[in-house]
Amino acid sequence: MIMRNRFDRQLALLDENMIRMGELCELAINRVIKALTGGSVEEARAVIEADDEIDHMEKDIERLCLKLLLQQQPVAKDLRRISAALKMITDMERIGDQTADIADIVIAANMCEVQDVRDITIMADEAGKMVRDSVAAYVEKDLEKARQVMKSDDVVDDLFEKIRGELIAFIAEKQGKDGSEVIDLLMISKYLERIGDHATNIAEWVEFSITGVHKGGEKI
Amino acid sequence: MIMRNRFDRQLALLDENMIRMGELCELAINRVIKALTGGSVEEARAVIEADDEIDHMEKDIERLCLKLLLQQQPVAKDLRRISAALKMITDMERIGDQTADIADIVIAANMCEVQDVRDITIMADEAGKMVRDSVAAYVEKDLEKARQVMKSDDVVDDLFEKIRGELIAFIAEKQGKDGSEVIDLLMISKYLERIGDHATNIAEWVEFSITGVHKGGEKI
Repeated sequence: MIMRNRFDRQLALLDENMIRMGELCELAINRVIKALTGGSVEEARAVIEADDEIDHMEKDIERLCLKLLLQQQPVAKDLRRISAALKMITDMERIGDQTADIADIVIAANMCEVQDVRDITIMADEAGKMVRDSVAAYVEKDLEKARQVMKSDDVVDDLFEKIRGELIAFIAEKQGKDGSEVIDLLMISKYLERIGDHATNIAEWVEFSITGVHKGGEKI
Repeated sequence: MIMRNRFDRQLALLDENMIRMGELCELAINRVIKALTGGSVEEARAVIEADDEIDHMEKDIERLCLKLLLQQQPVAKDLRRISAALKMITDMERIGDQTADIADIVIAANMCEVQDVRDITIMADEAGKMVRDSVAAYVEKDLEKARQVMKSDDVVDDLFEKIRGELIAFIAEKQGKDGSEVIDLLMISKYLERIGDHATNIAEWVEFSITGVHKGGEKI
């Protein structure tokens, strides 16, 4: 009986942590858009710092989940709940990365008083709401809410297509030819640039595995 | 003694798997660029399918690493090697995702006989080499090679900036004003679109945690 109670307490702790991590993601989305619209480099820097906290939460939740799996050997529903949490935190961690990516752009571009970011603001509001609702659906075990999130992804996708379309139309107008190829190549080159970053990360872990020092930090 | 030999055999298996996963990533990069330059939708589809194999390898290696950590309780150098491998596979998994993202663009755009993709091809060659060398550095415990990879990231970054710069210059020329804002907003909207995808993933895991069915597949 005591084991069971302890297990339930740990599951409740898991829920709490999931909500907290979701809140951090939503906050990061809101802040980075505030940084963009207000042209605030400080706000953008705060988003990058907050990404560390999100990474930290991922590790904490991961550790809690592994402890629950190893010590309690849960079955069926509880096992599904814990393994779903393990998957969800990976997505939340990437959301944190992407808000930091946006913050990097805001800092590099030194944007001030950006005029027409209405669509971007709507996208951010929608994306933030999706994150909040998806985590709430988990905690409340609300299938309907989860399915609502899947549906609302169309809104975000459509807005991206709209922004992309506007740029393509602009290029077409000025050059008299289809601009989509230019945009596609830009996106592809961005992905390749990102692949290079990952290879660099790998190399940094190799250095750690040999020297015990990661990215010039303390020896572990 | 037997334990030690078994441990060494498992470490050798880990190395083999790491090399295999790195090769799959490098192959995916080469194939997706072939798909782009040759305008081959089939080749692009093959890259998306191969991403499943990369995901699968991540799971296999993760399982092997956890087994090594739990059963052998390694210390110092071996512990560092295994924990570094756990980090590296996350990056390789994302490289697989990004090649699939590029493949999606190739399919959606229905590109045929793309003309000027010289810079993209150089980027892809360089990124592929970085992946190969970083994994080789791990297996060969070659610190110099690892550091070389970190340095060569500049080549990929510079090429991305070059492509981005060309588009900005083009917009500036046609419109007489700085085009960088347009590009930045496009990138930001892309990240937000990606955040929406992650929230959707989370919602799909919620559905799984409640119903035991993930993305309309078999009940687990």
